[in-house]
Amino acid sequence: MTSKDELDRLLALYNIPRAGWLIRGVPAALAEDVASHSYLVAVLALRIAHEARGCGGNVDEGKALTMALIHDLPEALTGDIPRPVKERLGDVVGRLEEEALGKLGFTHFKDLYAEVESAASVEALLVKMADDLATYLRAVYYLNSGFEGVRDIAENTRSSVVSLIPRLPGGLRECVQRYVSTLLEYKAR
Amino acid sequence: MTSKDELDRLLALYNIPRAGWLIRGVPAALAEDVASHSYLVAVLALRIAHEARGCGGNVDEGKALTMALIHDLPEALTGDIPRPVKERLGDVVGRLEEEALGKLGFTHFKDLYAEVESAASVEALLVKMADDLATYLRAVYYLNSGFEGVRDIAENTRSSVVSLIPRLPGGLRECVQRYVSTLLEYKAR
Amino acid sequence: MTSKDELDRLLALYNIPRAGWLIRGVPAALAEDVASHSYLVAVLALRIAHEARGCGGNVDEGKALTMALIHDLPEALTGDIPRPVKERLGDVVGRLEEEALGKLGFTHFKDLYAEVESAASVEALLVKMADDLATYLRAVYYLNSGFEGVRDIAENTRSSVVSLIPRLPGGLRECVQRYVSTLLEYKAR
Amino acid sequence: MTSKDELDRLLALYNIPRAGWLIRGVPAALAEDVASHSYLVAVLALRIAHEARGCGGNVDEGKALTMALIHDLPEALTGDIPRPVKERLGDVVGRLEEEALGKLGFTHFKDLYAEVESAASVEALLVKMADDLATYLRAVYYLNSGFEGVRDIAENTRSSVVSLIPRLPGGLRECVQRYVSTLLEYKAR
Amino acid sequence: MTSKDELDRLLALYNIPRAGWLIRGVPAALAEDVASHSYLVAVLALRIAHEARGCGGNVDEGKALTMALIHDLPEALTGDIPRPVKERLGDVVGRLEEEALGKLGFTHFKDLYAEVESAASVEALLVKMADDLATYLRAVYYLNSGFEGVRDIAENTRSSVVSLIPRLPGGLRECVQRYVSTLLEYKAR
Amino acid sequence: MTSKDELDRLLALYNIPRAGWLIRGVPAALAEDVASHSYLVAVLALRIAHEARGCGGNVDEGKALTMALIHDLPEALTGDIPRPVKERLGDVVGRLEEEALGKLGFTHFKDLYAEVESAASVEALLVKMADDLATYLRAVYYLNSGFEGVRDIAENTRSSVVSLIPRLPGGLRECVQRYVSTLLEYKAR
Repeated sequence: MTSKDELDRLLALYNIPRAGWLIRGVPAALAEDVASHSYLVAVLALRIAHEARGCGGNVDEGKALTMALIHDLPEALTGDIPRPVKERLGDVVGRLEEEALGKLGFTHFKDLYAEVESAASVEALLVKMADDLATYLRAVYYLNSGFEGVRDIAENTRSSVVSLIPRLPGGLRECVQRYVSTLLEYKAR
Repeated sequence: MTSKDELDRLLALYNIPRAGWLIRGVPAALAEDVASHSYLVAVLALRIAHEARGCGGNVDEGKALTMALIHDLPEALTGDIPRPVKERLGDVVGRLEEEALGKLGFTHFKDLYAEVESAASVEALLVKMADDLATYLRAVYYLNSGFEGVRDIAENTRSSVVSLIPRLPGGLRECVQRYVSTLLEYKAR
Repeated sequence: MTSKDELDRLLALYNIPRAGWLIRGVPAALAEDVASHSYLVAVLALRIAHEARGCGGNVDEGKALTMALIHDLPEALTGDIPRPVKERLGDVVGRLEEEALGKLGFTHFKDLYAEVESAASVEALLVKMADDLATYLRAVYYLNSGFEGVRDIAENTRSSVVSLIPRLPGGLRECVQRYVSTLLEYKAR
Repeated sequence: MTSKDELDRLLALYNIPRAGWLIRGVPAALAEDVASHSYLVAVLALRIAHEARGCGGNVDEGKALTMALIHDLPEALTGDIPRPVKERLGDVVGRLEEEALGKLGFTHFKDLYAEVESAASVEALLVKMADDLATYLRAVYYLNSGFEGVRDIAENTRSSVVSLIPRLPGGLRECVQRYVSTLLEYKAR
Repeated sequence: MTSKDELDRLLALYNIPRAGWLIRGVPAALAEDVASHSYLVAVLALRIAHEARGCGGNVDEGKALTMALIHDLPEALTGDIPRPVKERLGDVVGRLEEEALGKLGFTHFKDLYAEVESAASVEALLVKMADDLATYLRAVYYLNSGFEGVRDIAENTRSSVVSLIPRLPGGLRECVQRYVSTLLEYKAR
Repeated sequence: MTSKDELDRLLALYNIPRAGWLIRGVPAALAEDVASHSYLVAVLALRIAHEARGCGGNVDEGKALTMALIHDLPEALTGDIPRPVKERLGDVVGRLEEEALGKLGFTHFKDLYAEVESAASVEALLVKMADDLATYLRAVYYLNSGFEGVRDIAENTRSSVVSLIPRLPGGLRECVQRYVSTLLEYKAR
């Protein structure tokens, strides 16, 4: 890809509504796009990493933020494929995403990308948590506007966040749990 | 799926912008949704079938329209996956689409669905032509508003229409060609 | 009209929000357009016709689908005029719609168009039912998002569907009723 | 109508895109709504009336502004009916609009409303001019974004403005002409 | 500014969503723009002035409408700055707004503009009331769609309207109060 | 602010269109929001930092990304104030932004925030460059769709990027310049 093509595709992330909302009845005019979502994931990762360090956790913030930023980048080329479909497609999706990362000029981050996918480090775990939290918060927002179809997403992401905490290193758990709890008090009316 | 779930998903087709436009820079607010697109495909299929019959063609209009209407139905569950991705994914996509058709309560149309995919009848060929024409017309619309990224779609769908004509039964070719030519005069400024 | 003008107008059906929603407080960004609505009417007509045939009904599917597709076509030229206004305008609207159909290149369907309007056949009745059902389902969707102004539409279309059933040929009634009942269980929270 | 119903309908003017743009290919997401349009008409009327008074014209500004504000009010109930359709419908439209004005609680302005329609005073002429100018400016905006279908509106409103000037009282003509000319220099690229 | 620049900026008022809604969670696709809001303020001012005159009040309608129309004009250049920010910025905002009015070609209205700001006349009081009412009505609309974040705006504008009534000249109070009460019965469900 | 209020405000960044586009004629439906913009700034900062390190530059990526992410955070409370207005408002804006950062729970980043504002480090310079580049790319996108009003933004951000390069440490200049040049080849047609 030329540099111009790379940029065109990066800019397209502004346009891509997340498929999970669309197929559950959220109109395109209200659906969160991939760029905005990635922004929120990064900001939440920043907050959680900060809390984790507050109780002595050894967290590489630069690594966590980079992971948050690149985690959905391949969608600039693949579009957003709903999670249940992805799960059925198997390994080929991973290969396509890695290729997409390369075409967009981010080849050098492919190990980091794989690390998030496999949740293979404390930073990857924090980013997964931030990803689920960001999705949870948006699900609550839609529930409050009557889009009842997204309730399963709210429930699944909430459970996922809770289940990630015990996988963190012992020293961080309490700190992160405390902060995350305040976020999970955020509920649909 | 309950009847309510089926309906929720059908209604979601209003919300799903076609991925090909999005990843090429068309903003979500301007992107054609799957329901509108399917409508245009059906209306064009109706017109082309009418022309074909005008020169003695033996075309089953009800069959052609049914094909046009169900052709993108599975996207209510799978979302719209960009064509280059689909091509890489292979047979599994076909199976997922067939399953989706079933979940939506259209199991009895799965043979018809497969027939369009394989272009195995004159009606299937007409629907494919209508699908490409509908996409071509929308691509021209976007080119006129400065979304240059969709030019390859305009060119590919145009070529595809032209290449489908010789595959039609001899008696229909001239009639269809004549009508389609008037549509292909529709060009970006 | 030139062929290009015809196409421009057909494409405009994507843009025309249904007036009934707008004047009752649904914002334009969320309002269903005429093309999407027509799509849903056609898909529901397909389903109902299928059920009807399942109990031995003699239904011409091609005819029903054609009716569904052309039923709102004239709005490409006339825009969508709210129902109470139309009722006050009298016969002149019918003449304008017929002319519009002609200008769009669908002259040969004008008898079919009139047949739907007068509900003069089993297919016309099924299309009317599908039209009301599609509108009902969308009204429920808006009620769930707090647009209380559309409640009268939900109630009127629901009643209309129920009142159409006894007008069907005896053999079809039970089958259609059974299917339609499952749709009418779809209700606002 | 109850006071609440009146307000609901007034607020709906925010939602109603002007039909002339929609049927010429402007997407609903970009189409000017009736409330915004009426605002621009009123602001331009204010400017033109100010100019007219600058050269000694006897213009009742309050009357002109009231006319501008109520001129499209009935569309809260009737929706926006495209001009060519309105022309075919004849007198019945005028009666429906007057009724709508009454239902919205503006009965006492019905003479003023009729006065604009018949361009029966200098204020009415200025408001018609402001209406055409506002529409012209928006048409130019759309032409610049490639929506070529609106060119006839740009041309017709421009001509209409020019043709209204000689109908003004002698003393105002030069002043108004001078100001309007600067607006008409505003052209599509 | 050239005349063309002035017009470009005036037209931009269509695009500027009111910041108060946005920062409280109303999505841009649903947020009222400055032009539509100003329209509603003017229409309500017209209604209230009419009521006031009905009980013998001496109200200059032309002056009130002009005030309503120009009250948010400067935002064409300054954008919409949230109220709490404006309050902190102090006098400089007033100077910027006056300059903006000049650049847009409305220098001659700067005294009227200042008069609204300081609520220094009966017309200014009526326009402030119309401004608060228009905002109140829209807040209720958003509350009904689940955007709970705007509740403080609904409450504050409601209180503000009530507190403005005693500041009106004695003869008008009862009339205006009566009409305004019917509007304030408009409440979120 | 409670944790819930903080989150509500963070989510609001999805809704806030950048004011510079709006006042220059870009419709709200197409205007980039603050969250998406911040995402692009962060991704470009990541790319530029990577290039800089490639030629031996000593760049703290985590710091640069944090700066990119928090740079527009205060707009969740202040809204987006157009640049020329900000410049006139002076120091008070800085104080308001710092307070906003605190209210949103990011007090501990206030030094970093000030560092970007004053361009007081290599990371701050890279983030400013990324900010200008992101804005430049979007300006080109709008120019291609006919929104000529944004041309001054395209020109100013382009010049700004070029003028920032000589302020970088000697060793980084060539590397960064090389990469940035490829981006600046991205031009409006």
